[in-house]
Amino acid sequence: MKKTRKKSNCPINSVLELFGDKWAFLIVRDLMFNGKHYYGEFLNSEEKISTNILADRLSLLEESEIITKTKDPDHKSKFVYRLTQKGIDLLPILLEFILWSSKYDNEVAIDKEFVEAIQKNKIKMLNAISNRLKNELIE
Amino acid sequence: MKKTRKKSNCPINSVLELFGDKWAFLIVRDLMFNGKHYYGEFLNSEEKISTNILADRLSLLEESEIITKTKDPDHKSKFVYRLTQKGIDLLPILLEFILWSSKYDNEVAIDKEFVEAIQKNKIKMLNAISNRLKNELIE
Repeated sequence: MKKTRKKSNCPINSVLELFGDKWAFLIVRDLMFNGKHYYGEFLNSEEKISTNILADRLSLLEESEIITKTKDPDHKSKFVYRLTQKGIDLLPILLEFILWSSKYDNEVAIDKEFVEAIQKNKIKMLNAISNRLKNELIE
Repeated sequence: MKKTRKKSNCPINSVLELFGDKWAFLIVRDLMFNGKHYYGEFLNSEEKISTNILADRLSLLEESEIITKTKDPDHKSKFVYRLTQKGIDLLPILLEFILWSSKYDNEVAIDKEFVEAIQKNKIKMLNAISNRLKNELIE
């Protein structure tokens, strides 16, 4: 997915064109909620992303400064992927995805306690998750 | 875009698979913020959706009960599209899109007053826009 000139200067279109389709968002989800940091881990997610799409979307996210790619200090041949602050700031969008589908899609697997915690105090939950992700950034 | 069995039961994937790509979201945007209600109006949006994609995404949104399609009482040959409550409930997601790209994409056209109003009191803005859309529903 190449970066091309956007079709409009609408802020909603901006996000949608950047992400393009669901795959880049699912990588962000894995980094945000599933503690995944490695190529092989993203590949093993339930939605079964293909290797070429995964490689493409990781590049896109890195170019867009939503994630960083660094050499793993423990395994020099591996790379660690992490969310940047720009990536962490996607959290409110993903939480709203969770709330909407918890309400309207009865086929999704809901962590009821998690959803109730967001509903009860969204700002507190946002801060708690953001802080956890920011700590990963510093490590 | 046919409804098929979802690739996972993740609530984030649920939203992304339902929408599939940006076009369905842009129709929701037009209904939500741009006061558009007619096929021809969606067609004229800046992103220049093609007729076949527009027809497909309108059907998808109607099947998913995010919008309704009713005969226009004033022009019997025309249809009026409106957001349902399920569609109106996508508002927090779209507001978060706006906030994120206002922060990170300096090429987007920002309604500064609108963005500041969301930042200042998100719940108040959510209620004001939701109420306006609910009134359209009742008309």
